[in-house]
Amino acid sequence: MKFNYQAGNGWQSDSQEFDDRGQQFGDGLFETVRLDGHGVAPLWQMHIERLALGLKALRFSDAAVELVLHAVDSIAHPPGMTACKLLVTRGVGLRGYGFSPDLMPLVTVRYFNAPEFSTSPYVAGTSDVVLSTQPLLAGHKHLNRLEQVLARDSFDAEWNECIMLDSSGIVIEGCMSNVFVKLDGRWLTPEITSSGINGVVRRWLLDTNPEINVQNFGLPELNSAQGLIFTNSLVGIRSCHIFDSQTLDVAPEAKRWQLAYQEMFE
Amino acid sequence: MKFNYQAGNGWQSDSQEFDDRGQQFGDGLFETVRLDGHGVAPLWQMHIERLALGLKALRFSDAAVELVLHAVDSIAHPPGMTACKLLVTRGVGLRGYGFSPDLMPLVTVRYFNAPEFSTSPYVAGTSDVVLSTQPLLAGHKHLNRLEQVLARDSFDAEWNECIMLDSSGIVIEGCMSNVFVKLDGRWLTPEITSSGINGVVRRWLLDTNPEINVQNFGLPELNSAQGLIFTNSLVGIRSCHIFDSQTLDVAPEAKRWQLAYQEMFE
Repeated sequence: MKFNYQAGNGWQSDSQEFDDRGQQFGDGLFETVRLDGHGVAPLWQMHIERLALGLKALRFSDAAVELVLHAVDSIAHPPGMTACKLLVTRGVGLRGYGFSPDLMPLVTVRYFNAPEFSTSPYVAGTSDVVLSTQPLLAGHKHLNRLEQVLARDSFDAEWNECIMLDSSGIVIEGCMSNVFVKLDGRWLTPEITSSGINGVVRRWLLDTNPEINVQNFGLPELNSAQGLIFTNSLVGIRSCHIFDSQTLDVAPEAKRWQLAYQEMFE
Repeated sequence: MKFNYQAGNGWQSDSQEFDDRGQQFGDGLFETVRLDGHGVAPLWQMHIERLALGLKALRFSDAAVELVLHAVDSIAHPPGMTACKLLVTRGVGLRGYGFSPDLMPLVTVRYFNAPEFSTSPYVAGTSDVVLSTQPLLAGHKHLNRLEQVLARDSFDAEWNECIMLDSSGIVIEGCMSNVFVKLDGRWLTPEITSSGINGVVRRWLLDTNPEINVQNFGLPELNSAQGLIFTNSLVGIRSCHIFDSQTLDVAPEAKRWQLAYQEMFE
């Protein structure tokens, strides 16, 4: 089920104009939201906050941010659907990178059913795609995702996820998720200030577990970890038990967090 | 005037599906091509070569590359139009970053009239947007262009172009063009191996003027340059006479190259 909403002008047909700046330049943002059985998104507020931060980082005007958030908030959740993807673009512009602040943004919503929750642990490896460093875009779920497309395409056949590093060897994230590691009894997650997406499950875990530290680490640490988890709005929290062909323990905290996340959607 | 061509399936309507991977992830490439009065593109072969290299870098299958190049080559040039933008995406995929090699790529062509050639020199400055480093994508005219969108938006009112640096201070390109500088009597242009687009006018200038060197340089050199030019398929070759509020000479070679470029379109 798909709907388009041109902020300010209401719902439209289910296709975009060629000249939409999402298609031309990846000039926009997205959110992938898990809903409960009643069509309610338990972490909706965090999605909206991240979207608003992203719109500001992409220099949408205050008026455009307001239009977009109003459009997004007016979305009717169809019963039975358990996930949606929101896609916000700067709208249909003239030729060239420049844009007028009064462009009408386009909000598109796509409903689908989220995968069933699973507790089976992941097999993961290290991606050969090195993430670039761009503090102006770090944290935001923008539409420039070619690095993830290339990383996903170079998965080994048995992988469920991969670890992506930046050029200084810092672990940033998974291709489709954020990453948390238990080292010397402490849980850490990378800073996400120069690369990567600040995921909603990441934020929820940090909010609900203040003992987790935001601190960078490298690849060598992962091989001696007492726990490694990947987090993603749709699949929730998944432990990794085989990383780069080495076996890792599944930490008890991971199971607890996994259940706490899943319970929100019951 | 707009046409869509789904490679292999012929021409379609003038809008894209929401699920097109161009819109979702910036998963595609573009070419902006200047045509002469007969609808012929003098540098067509260079555009096609760059597009083919980009498709391979984005891991389009050999079969997909062939389909795209056939579609692009079958484009009828409408008389009177002097420019076109080709946009190639990986096509309509399922949810997620992964893709099947047998996805049907989408080629979209948009005709418009190029700006009249002008010899008036540019005013330029230095962008505060630092380009990220990604050798896997460098050189290719892909659809992940948020850095250029941000750079264009931070132009001073009097600028025609800007210089963009990488994080090590190397000059990479202009926001919309490649850059050439004359230092100690020698013309240089940056390598474009870790960031930036390998422009068609850049390649034409290097091919026709073997005395130009491909060599990196920094910002300090620009202030003592004996010439600074920006190159772009649509506007051709433009000298810069005011850079960061300092006056620069307009080099005689620049005028000669400018005319040689323009003559191809007569």
